[in-house]
Amino acid sequence: MAIQNKTNKTIIVFSDDLDKVMAAFMVATGAAAMGFGVSMYFTFWGLSVLRKENGKAGGKSLVDKIFALMMPKGTNKLVLSKMHMLGAGTWMMKRVMAQKQVAMLPELIKTAQDMGVNFIVCQMTMDMMGLKKEELIDGLNFTGVAGYLAATEESNVNLFI
Amino acid sequence: MAIQNKTNKTIIVFSDDLDKVMAAFMVATGAAAMGFGVSMYFTFWGLSVLRKENGKAGGKSLVDKIFALMMPKGTNKLVLSKMHMLGAGTWMMKRVMAQKQVAMLPELIKTAQDMGVNFIVCQMTMDMMGLKKEELIDGLNFTGVAGYLAATEESNVNLFI
Amino acid sequence: MAIQNKTNKTIIVFSDDLDKVMAAFMVATGAAAMGFGVSMYFTFWGLSVLRKENGKAGGKSLVDKIFALMMPKGTNKLVLSKMHMLGAGTWMMKRVMAQKQVAMLPELIKTAQDMGVNFIVCQMTMDMMGLKKEELIDGLNFTGVAGYLAATEESNVNLFI
Repeated sequence: MAIQNKTNKTIIVFSDDLDKVMAAFMVATGAAAMGFGVSMYFTFWGLSVLRKENGKAGGKSLVDKIFALMMPKGTNKLVLSKMHMLGAGTWMMKRVMAQKQVAMLPELIKTAQDMGVNFIVCQMTMDMMGLKKEELIDGLNFTGVAGYLAATEESNVNLFI
Repeated sequence: MAIQNKTNKTIIVFSDDLDKVMAAFMVATGAAAMGFGVSMYFTFWGLSVLRKENGKAGGKSLVDKIFALMMPKGTNKLVLSKMHMLGAGTWMMKRVMAQKQVAMLPELIKTAQDMGVNFIVCQMTMDMMGLKKEELIDGLNFTGVAGYLAATEESNVNLFI
Repeated sequence: MAIQNKTNKTIIVFSDDLDKVMAAFMVATGAAAMGFGVSMYFTFWGLSVLRKENGKAGGKSLVDKIFALMMPKGTNKLVLSKMHMLGAGTWMMKRVMAQKQVAMLPELIKTAQDMGVNFIVCQMTMDMMGLKKEELIDGLNFTGVAGYLAATEESNVNLFI
């Protein structure tokens, strides 16, 4: 008799707000450190997190090019969901976090990958935003919502961030 | 001995941001297509999704009327959570999504209903916003948070969107 | 053989939007009333919810003082995520909710505490924002993300709000 204990964790990373993305990676790395299997499903704006800072791809339509320009390119371009105020909030939060020795986002992403967190990318968002694989960081799995749902099968914690 | 495998899915639709609502329906229809039981609980701003475009109801107080005017009326009035820019973001996203053959929201809602996704409406929000049943689409169940929690009893995926 | 039914509920309170916080407490108190164990994990902006209106602490750095000024202080200072419009949205929602006899947030918080809902505070956010325990309401548990994850172990509903 197979009993599913369902102890894995999945996180849908929908947002590209710096603070929300940081929270997502803190839960992911915390859970991975405790030995749980973790999958992160990047969809909609969340794909910005995975963009290379200098990633480029040819053969794009004009709409795709404009879209690419409007979306933040990599972790250093993300902003907080609150306290924008001409960037002061983001700058201060980053400064405070640096002072307080909190691991910054690029480091958190690398830690998550090193710990074996499964990075799943929503293929439909890729198509919708005209993004190509060479514009994103390495080590990603591309799938649809069925791939996300498969990851939830053994999970009890399933967050939408 | 009853073992709860808890494989159903529930989604609290709190937001009326077009992109978040689309994500909610994509997960819901994807899960329903894989044979899982799915319940969506519409609360707060999420009720806008279910408003008929021409739905009207008499006997409202002034505050309720103002509230009704301020909330978007139906899926064509929802906007994206990002890139507002005088509506350009929403317009472009809709255009891109049309180009890329992604099913649009009204179609997704109909698909969800046809697939048997359970639409639950927060009665307290109805009262709070002065909405009446005849202003909403058909096929809805009206309940309180206890009804939502009952739906989570057999579920392992429970998202707040 | 230990079978985990996982019927507890956990809620990450990340946001300090009035409406989202109210939704969090409605789910929490609803679940507690039905006899489920409930834990709320306050992180990032969510800590604003727990600040005393007149709480003060000495020995803060300048950055910490500015941060403290920028964050809302207690439940009466929270605003809605939508319809800001110079505060009209928040004022109207509060008025409507009062008219409709919906329990307001401070009452919901007290009810949750009386019902035994477990309030967990993210220690890292405390450090990051320079908040001290004497600035927050009583009855809180301070921990890291591991404490949150421990609370999810017996839970099937785990929301991020």
